[in-house]
Amino acid sequence: MPRRGLVTLPDPVHPAWLPPEAFRAIGSRRTLVLGDGLLAGTVYDEVADACARHGGRVRRGAEDGPHDLVLALTTAEPLPGVAGEVRPGSAIGAEGYVLARRDGVTVVLADEPAGLLYGLFHVVRLGERAFAGERQAEHHRPAMRRRMLDHWDNVDIHPVMGQVERGYAGGSIFWRDGAPRGDLARVRAYGRLLAACGVNAISVNNVNVHATEAHLLTDRLGDVSALADVLRPYGIGVHLSVSFASPVVLGGLATADPLDEDVRKWWAGVTERVYDAIPDFGGYVVKADSEGQPGPFAYGRDHADGANLLAEALAPYGGVVHWRAFVYNHRQDWRDRSTDRARAAYDHFAPLDGRFRDNVILQVKHGPVDFQVREPVSPVIAAMPATRLAVELQVTQEYTGQQRHVCYLPPMWREVLGFRPWGPDGPSRPDGPDGPSGPDGSGGTAAVTVADVAGGALGDGDGDGDDGGGLVGVSNVGDDPYWTGHPLAQANLYAFGRLAWAPEMDPAAILDEWIDLTFAPATASGDAEPAETAETERLRRTLHAIMGGSWRTYERYTAPLGVGFMVRPGRHYGPDVDGYEYTPWGTYHFADRDGVGVDRTRATGTGFTGQYPPPWSQVYESLDQCPDELLLFFHHVPYGHVLHSGSTVIQHIYDTHFAGAEEAVEARRRWEEAAGLFDPSLHARVERLLDEQVRCAEEWRDQVNAYFFRKSGVPDLRGRRIP
Amino acid sequence: MPRRGLVTLPDPVHPAWLPPEAFRAIGSRRTLVLGDGLLAGTVYDEVADACARHGGRVRRGAEDGPHDLVLALTTAEPLPGVAGEVRPGSAIGAEGYVLARRDGVTVVLADEPAGLLYGLFHVVRLGERAFAGERQAEHHRPAMRRRMLDHWDNVDIHPVMGQVERGYAGGSIFWRDGAPRGDLARVRAYGRLLAACGVNAISVNNVNVHATEAHLLTDRLGDVSALADVLRPYGIGVHLSVSFASPVVLGGLATADPLDEDVRKWWAGVTERVYDAIPDFGGYVVKADSEGQPGPFAYGRDHADGANLLAEALAPYGGVVHWRAFVYNHRQDWRDRSTDRARAAYDHFAPLDGRFRDNVILQVKHGPVDFQVREPVSPVIAAMPATRLAVELQVTQEYTGQQRHVCYLPPMWREVLGFRPWGPDGPSRPDGPDGPSGPDGSGGTAAVTVADVAGGALGDGDGDGDDGGGLVGVSNVGDDPYWTGHPLAQANLYAFGRLAWAPEMDPAAILDEWIDLTFAPATASGDAEPAETAETERLRRTLHAIMGGSWRTYERYTAPLGVGFMVRPGRHYGPDVDGYEYTPWGTYHFADRDGVGVDRTRATGTGFTGQYPPPWSQVYESLDQCPDELLLFFHHVPYGHVLHSGSTVIQHIYDTHFAGAEEAVEARRRWEEAAGLFDPSLHARVERLLDEQVRCAEEWRDQVNAYFFRKSGVPDLRGRRIP
Repeated sequence: MPRRGLVTLPDPVHPAWLPPEAFRAIGSRRTLVLGDGLLAGTVYDEVADACARHGGRVRRGAEDGPHDLVLALTTAEPLPGVAGEVRPGSAIGAEGYVLARRDGVTVVLADEPAGLLYGLFHVVRLGERAFAGERQAEHHRPAMRRRMLDHWDNVDIHPVMGQVERGYAGGSIFWRDGAPRGDLARVRAYGRLLAACGVNAISVNNVNVHATEAHLLTDRLGDVSALADVLRPYGIGVHLSVSFASPVVLGGLATADPLDEDVRKWWAGVTERVYDAIPDFGGYVVKADSEGQPGPFAYGRDHADGANLLAEALAPYGGVVHWRAFVYNHRQDWRDRSTDRARAAYDHFAPLDGRFRDNVILQVKHGPVDFQVREPVSPVIAAMPATRLAVELQVTQEYTGQQRHVCYLPPMWREVLGFRPWGPDGPSRPDGPDGPSGPDGSGGTAAVTVADVAGGALGDGDGDGDDGGGLVGVSNVGDDPYWTGHPLAQANLYAFGRLAWAPEMDPAAILDEWIDLTFAPATASGDAEPAETAETERLRRTLHAIMGGSWRTYERYTAPLGVGFMVRPGRHYGPDVDGYEYTPWGTYHFADRDGVGVDRTRATGTGFTGQYPPPWSQVYESLDQCPDELLLFFHHVPYGHVLHSGSTVIQHIYDTHFAGAEEAVEARRRWEEAAGLFDPSLHARVERLLDEQVRCAEEWRDQVNAYFFRKSGVPDLRGRRIP
Repeated sequence: MPRRGLVTLPDPVHPAWLPPEAFRAIGSRRTLVLGDGLLAGTVYDEVADACARHGGRVRRGAEDGPHDLVLALTTAEPLPGVAGEVRPGSAIGAEGYVLARRDGVTVVLADEPAGLLYGLFHVVRLGERAFAGERQAEHHRPAMRRRMLDHWDNVDIHPVMGQVERGYAGGSIFWRDGAPRGDLARVRAYGRLLAACGVNAISVNNVNVHATEAHLLTDRLGDVSALADVLRPYGIGVHLSVSFASPVVLGGLATADPLDEDVRKWWAGVTERVYDAIPDFGGYVVKADSEGQPGPFAYGRDHADGANLLAEALAPYGGVVHWRAFVYNHRQDWRDRSTDRARAAYDHFAPLDGRFRDNVILQVKHGPVDFQVREPVSPVIAAMPATRLAVELQVTQEYTGQQRHVCYLPPMWREVLGFRPWGPDGPSRPDGPDGPSGPDGSGGTAAVTVADVAGGALGDGDGDGDDGGGLVGVSNVGDDPYWTGHPLAQANLYAFGRLAWAPEMDPAAILDEWIDLTFAPATASGDAEPAETAETERLRRTLHAIMGGSWRTYERYTAPLGVGFMVRPGRHYGPDVDGYEYTPWGTYHFADRDGVGVDRTRATGTGFTGQYPPPWSQVYESLDQCPDELLLFFHHVPYGHVLHSGSTVIQHIYDTHFAGAEEAVEARRRWEEAAGLFDPSLHARVERLLDEQVRCAEEWRDQVNAYFFRKSGVPDLRGRRIP
C-alpha cells in the first residue's frame, strides 16, 4: 500500500487518485498562497503537507519570493507581479480559475477560494507539466454549478437492501448498524477525493427514506451536521434525503398535504433549524410517490405542489430541493401491452413544466427506464424548458456488473451528455459552435446538448450554469479499502466529477488522467518533461485495453439492442432472460418464437416515440432510421430483421454474445500479463474479479444465446456451440 | 373461538381437531381406566377432564360399575367381565388396541399404555357411534412403528430462511429469537393433537443445522429435554437434527472423520449425556453432504460410514439415526443435459444397500426430485431391500401453495403409499391380498406397496413394522393461531398421522373424520346415532367440494404433466416458468419452440428410467405406456404429441390451466356461500386466503399459457384469451 497524504487513513485504505506521489511536483517547489477563507486554508494545508513530504516550501500572504507557483484570489492586494498580469478583464466566476505560466512562475487566480482549490488540483493533475515552458492564460469554469453524488446509504441495515442500497463496495462510509460510523478521517479523505475531481455536493442518505433515516431531519440532525463540518473544507455541500411524510412521521401532524398551512409551517420550522445547525446546507432530495415512497398523490396534489412545498421552506436560505422524476407504476399488469413504463416520467412531469419554483431541481434519470446498459436519452430532458433539470447518472454499477465487472461508464455518459435533444438543428448553445459532438455525428454544430440543459443553457443565458440543475450521480463508494469494491471502478467516480465539470471531455483523456494520478505519479522531481518509462506506457496501454471499451463489452454479453432488463430479479446481477417478463415492474422484452422487442411507436405501439421532439420522434419511430443499438427499445421485430450492420437480429445476438464473452477473457489475459506493473494486492483483487467477470460473461452468453435459440430455432451461422 | 379442552391454550389458539365438544360422548358417560404407566395416566386425565365438562364420571383401578366404557391394559388383574371376554388370544402388540362393544359396554384393550391412548382417541373419533349397538372386536395396530414429523425450525432467526425454514404458519412453537419460546402449554397441546392423529415422534430443529442449533446437542440440551418432558405424556419421542461436523464445531476436534477413533469416542460420550438427560430420546436426524451441509465426503468416506458412526453411538440406548437421502449436486451446469438430479439419491445410496447398521433409517423423499406437485415415486424405495427406509412427505406446502392455497395432500400421499415398487406382480405383502390399491389399478393384489416397505414388509416378516423406517413428514405447524396458517391446512397434518398409522385409508374418509372432529362434534348427548342436521351435511359437502380435489386443482394451474419447478426461485411461491431453467439447481423443463420435457429414458436420455425395476423401468421408458401425468418428467415431446386423454400436450396445458383457475374461483364461491356454517373469524381468514389463491391461480394460468403460446405459436383450440 503506498504512503498516504494529508489525511491519515486507516492503514488498508487505498489513496485512490491522490497518492502522495501525485503532489511531488508541487511539494518539491516554492509556493505562495494568497487569499482568505476556509478553502484557501485548505489549499495552503494541502501544499504545506506536500512540501513537508517532498522538500519544497509554502508561504501565505507574504511575498518573500521567488515562487514557482502562486495561488491567489483576485481580491488579494497587492497581487504579485506575474499573477497581476494574468488577471483577466472580466470576472472569473464562481468556482472558476485562470491558469497560466509566465517567466517561470505558474499562476492560479480565482475570484473565490473554491476556484483556488480546483486550480490546485488542476496543477496536481498536470504534475511536472505545470512547471514547464510558458502557458497562455486558460480560463476554467464548471459547466454545471452543482456536481452532486447521491448516496443510497441507509443508517440502519435494511433487511433486504442492506447498509447501502445497490452498494457494491461494502458498508457505508457514513453509517453503520444504525449509527454514524464515526470515521470522520475517512469522510474527510472522501471529500478531498471528490474535490480533486470536481464534485461539490453530496446527499448522505438513501432516497428511500426508512424509519430511522427520517429522523436525520430533526432529532438526528447532529449526525448530518458532523458530516457537513468535515466536508466543508473541501467545498462539498451536504444534502439530505427526506420523507415527504415527515410532517406525519416526525411532526405528529395528521397530514402531509402540501397545501395544508400547518404542513407548510412545519417544514418552515424544521428547515430553519436545519440551517441553524448547517448554514451552508444544500437542500432536500425527495423520491415521492415512487416505489412505495409517500408523496403528494395521497392528498390529491401533484408533484409541483409537493416540490414547491419544500422549495418554499428552503428558499430563504438558498437551498434547493432535488425532486426525482423517477415515478412510475411498479404494480403494472404484464398482460397489458398498452401501458409503458418508459412513458411514465414524461407523462407525470411534462405537463407541470413552468409550475415549479426556481429552487426546485427536477432530477431526471438519463434514460426513460432505469439505468440499463443502453437506453435512449429521456424525453423529459427536452420537454421542460421552464424547469431546472438535473440529469441523474448511476455511478454505482447496479445494472452494469455491480463492481465485479470492469465497466468504464464515461463513454455511455459522454453519449448522454453530448446528445442533442432537439437534434443537430435544434436551438443553439449560448457559447457558440465549439460544443461537444453528439452521437448523431453532428460535432461542431451549435445545437444544445443534454449537458447544456443540465448546465443551464436554456436559462437566462449568462452561462454561469445557475439555471441548470447540474449533474447527479448515484455514488459507488463504500467502506471497502478500495472505496469502490473493484479498484478499477474508482475511475467511474473520478470521471463522473470530471464530466460534471467539463462534459465535453474525451473519456479516454479522463482515463489517462486517472491512470496517471492513481498509478503513475512518480516522476523525477525537477524534470521539465517527465520521462515516461516503458513500464508506465505498458500500464497505460493495459488499462486502456481493459477499461476503454468495457462498457460496450458489457453491453455485448448482456441484454441486446437496447431491450434491457434481462437481469436476475431483485439482485440485478447475472442473467435471467425472462426474470422480469411476467412481473409487475413494467420491464418486458416480449420475446416469442417469431421476434423480440417493445413496440413503442405511435403507429402500432405505446406511442412513447411521440414524447420526443423532431427529429427523434421520427428517427425512433422509423424502423429504417432507428439506430441499431436502440432497435429493440423502440420496435418489436422478427428475428430475421436485418440491421444497418447487415446482420440479422438473431445473428447479431449470437455474434455479440460470443464476442463480449471473448473480450472478457481477453481482458483477463491482459491483466494477468501486467502482474508486475501493479501493487500485488490490488492486482490480486482485480484478478479475482476478472475471473468472476469471465464466468458471468460466459453465463450471460450461454443463457441469452440458449434462450433465443430455443425460441427462434435459428441456428448460428457460424456453427458455434449454443447449449 | 370454541371452548378449549384439557390443555389451557392462550386465548386465540384454535383447538384444531380436539375441541371440547369432541369429548362429549365420552365425557357424559361412565368410564373405567385400568392400568399403570404414564400414558394410562394421560388417558385417565383426558377422560376426567371430559367428564368435568360434560357431567360423566371416571374411575381408575376400582370396578364400582356399571361402566359405559372400559379402557384397560391386558396386564390389569382382574379384567372386568366384558373386557376379559374380548381379550384376544395373541398379543395385541406395541401401540395396538382392540376395540369392541358388548352388552352395552365399549371396551378398549391394549398391551401397552400407548395402545390405550390411541384407543381412547379412536373412541373420540367415533363419538356417539362408539356407544351404539354391538361392535365385533376390531384389532388395530399401526402400519408403521415410527410416525414422525420433522420440524424445520431454527432457534435463531435465519437471515434468509427465517424462524421456520419453509414454514408458512408464523414462527416456531418451540423457538423464538434464539431461545426456547417457553410456551410449554402450547407444546403440550401440540403433542396432544399429534397423539390424537397417531404421530409418535418429532424432531425439534431444522435439518439444516446452523451455528446456534448445533449446540442443542450439548450445552443447550436442556432446551430439548424440556420439550421431551412435555411431549412424553402423549407418547411423542423427541429427535434432534445434528450437524455432522459437531465433533469439530462443538468438540474442538480437528476432524469429524467417521472412521477416526476420537470422533467415535466423542459421539459416544455426547450421546451418553443425551440419554442421561432424556432416557427415551429418539435419535439423530442428519442432512449430510447436501446443499452445503457437512458430511463424510470431506474425509473421503461414504454415507454408510457417516450414518454408522452415529448409529453406533445411539445403539446402546435403542436410538436411531435418520439419515436423509436428499443428496445431489446443487451446483450443476444447466448446459449439461446428461447430468440428472433425479438420479442422484439412487446413485449415491443404492450401492450402499446392506452396509447400514440396523438402527440407521435412510429417509427418502417420496419423489426423486423435491416435493413437486407431481413426481414419480423415488426409485430408491425399490433399490435397498437390506436397508430400513423411511418415506419422507412434505406436509408443509413449500411447493403446493404455501398454506395460502387450499391443497389437501392425502390423495397424493395415498398414491405414493399405495404405489407398488415392483408392480402388481411384485413380491407379496406378508399379510395377504387385502392391501391398498395402487395407481396402477391393481387393487386387491398382494404385491408390496411403498407403505409396506416403510412399514417393514421386507424385513423379518413379523409384521410389527420393526424393520421399516416408517413415515416422516415435514411439519406445517407454527405459532399461528390456527397452527397451520391456513385453517384448512390442519387437515394435512391430521391426515399425515392417520395415513402413517393406516396407509390404506381413503383420503375422503380421513377428511370426514377431520371435519367431524373439527367442525361438527356437537351431537346431542345420549343419542344412539347422532342426528345429522342439514347444516352439518352442508358443511361437509362444502369442505369436500373445496378440499377433496384441491391437489389436482393445484396441479392443473401449476407445472403441467409432471415437469416440475416452474416456481419463483428462492421463495418457491407463484409462477416463474424459466425461473430455474438456467440455474445450478438441476431442475429444468427444456422447453423450446418445438417441445418440452426432460428425456430421462435409457434410449436417448439420462437413463433415469433404468433405476426402476420392471415393470416401471419399461412403463416409464415407453412413450406409449408412460402415464400422462408423468409424461414430461420422463420424456421430451413435441407440443403436438397426443396424450392418452386424446388432447395434445399444448392443448392440455391450455385446458388444464383454464380449468384449474376456474376451480379456484369455484372454491371461493362455495366458501362464500357457506359463511354461516363457520366461526366468523375462521371464515374470514379462509376467505382472504381464497382471494389470494384465485389471484395466484390466474397468474399461474396466464404466465404458463403465455409462456407456451409464445414458444409454440399454437393457438388455443377454444379461442380463449392468452395474454
